[in-house]
Amino acid sequence: MIRIVFLGFGNVGYHLCNAFQKSNTVSVCQVYNRSVISLPSEVATVPFTTHLSEIVKADVYIIAIPDDAIAAFSETLSFQNKLVVHTSGSVPLTALSEKNRKGVFYPLQSFSKNSVVTFSEIPICIEAEEASDIVLLQTLGEALSEKVTVITSEERLKLHLAAVFVNNFVNHMYSISSAILEENQLPFSLLQPLIAETARKVETLTPDEAQTGPAKRNDTKTIEKHLHLLGNGSNRTVYQEITKAIQEKYNPPHGKKL
Amino acid sequence: MIRIVFLGFGNVGYHLCNAFQKSNTVSVCQVYNRSVISLPSEVATVPFTTHLSEIVKADVYIIAIPDDAIAAFSETLSFQNKLVVHTSGSVPLTALSEKNRKGVFYPLQSFSKNSVVTFSEIPICIEAEEASDIVLLQTLGEALSEKVTVITSEERLKLHLAAVFVNNFVNHMYSISSAILEENQLPFSLLQPLIAETARKVETLTPDEAQTGPAKRNDTKTIEKHLHLLGNGSNRTVYQEITKAIQEKYNPPHGKKL
Repeated sequence: MIRIVFLGFGNVGYHLCNAFQKSNTVSVCQVYNRSVISLPSEVATVPFTTHLSEIVKADVYIIAIPDDAIAAFSETLSFQNKLVVHTSGSVPLTALSEKNRKGVFYPLQSFSKNSVVTFSEIPICIEAEEASDIVLLQTLGEALSEKVTVITSEERLKLHLAAVFVNNFVNHMYSISSAILEENQLPFSLLQPLIAETARKVETLTPDEAQTGPAKRNDTKTIEKHLHLLGNGSNRTVYQEITKAIQEKYNPPHGKKL
Repeated sequence: MIRIVFLGFGNVGYHLCNAFQKSNTVSVCQVYNRSVISLPSEVATVPFTTHLSEIVKADVYIIAIPDDAIAAFSETLSFQNKLVVHTSGSVPLTALSEKNRKGVFYPLQSFSKNSVVTFSEIPICIEAEEASDIVLLQTLGEALSEKVTVITSEERLKLHLAAVFVNNFVNHMYSISSAILEENQLPFSLLQPLIAETARKVETLTPDEAQTGPAKRNDTKTIEKHLHLLGNGSNRTVYQEITKAIQEKYNPPHGKKL
């Protein structure tokens, strides 16, 4: 049984805790949070504290707090030489305090409060300095997922950057579309089959093979019609920049294919 | 039995023809294409011609050719007072020749050569001037899909614009991510669960509820790290403009929530 303690309890903490609670190989011993929170019913039996001095002994401490608070918080821990990991995509391993053994346990997924998470398919990217800690994090990851991968801090930051494009930026495209439809009293549900198909397509085709649309085929007439509808503002700028990027990629000047 | 003829046979023509072939209420009488093509095996039994003068009688003629060729092509047809429809999202009904009854049969999906299409879920947006033609197109649409909607040319253009964001632009986000991972010898498959989850999330949450990430939470430190990795070029511009748009939407200046 791997004993773990959560330090901080936002969306990532909650979803991880909930998933570990269902595992037979991991025991969630405690949740620490600096302010009192009411634990959701699924994890309500886990002991809770707001005092750093009351943190119990465990095999792995999982810091699940905002990225910019991780370094300073790790310095405030009163114990030493334990395995302390964070769950961030963009914070290097070395940000953690030297007082403890450092590690990373990064689930490559976006966690929202009201969304159920199925961990078995989610890649978990781990990192640690000592071989025995890698083994421990590998076992911890396998309690949740079939896809546990050892990657470096540099690789993880690049993965996180790529994830921002396919998750945060894609979602903003959904947001712009949703606003366009709403303004015209058209239901967003009309677009849902296309959204699903667009995501499904890159399971079998590369994104370059799957690319279609006015920008790809340099259809300036349709692009002009769209720009006319968009008016001014950030949606227009976003449309123009992505269109330009697609045009340059697939229709480079002088007929030179990149 | 509704008798139809395809005029032009690109991706849309092929996928529609293939789907109609499986229907009991529609008969595909002929495919016209200006140049000789070999019909895929699934539709190889359909009579084929390259001569405008040989086009047979039918209830509906479906023009499936590039957008900018639709208007001129519809003028070249030698018959009159038949229902002639196009399948484009961005071309108005009125672009079609006055010689025939005008209509639109627009399946809201992106068709790629090597991708199987399940029509039952795909919205089909129809338009016609005469009530009896609306009924005919409704029946034709229902042969393929449970979601047939009557919309105007203006609404269709806005829907098409929204579709460009959730399909073409989203796919370009996948393309950028794929390139970032490839440069770093990381497999694109690492991102696939996140891509699927991002699309799935907006089935139950609005895109605004689902938005997360450094731009949303104004995490300038992470944004700086990402920009450092991106170097110069169009990926950087795209990152900056979408980040700015998200920041303005969720963190407007002066603490004013839009």
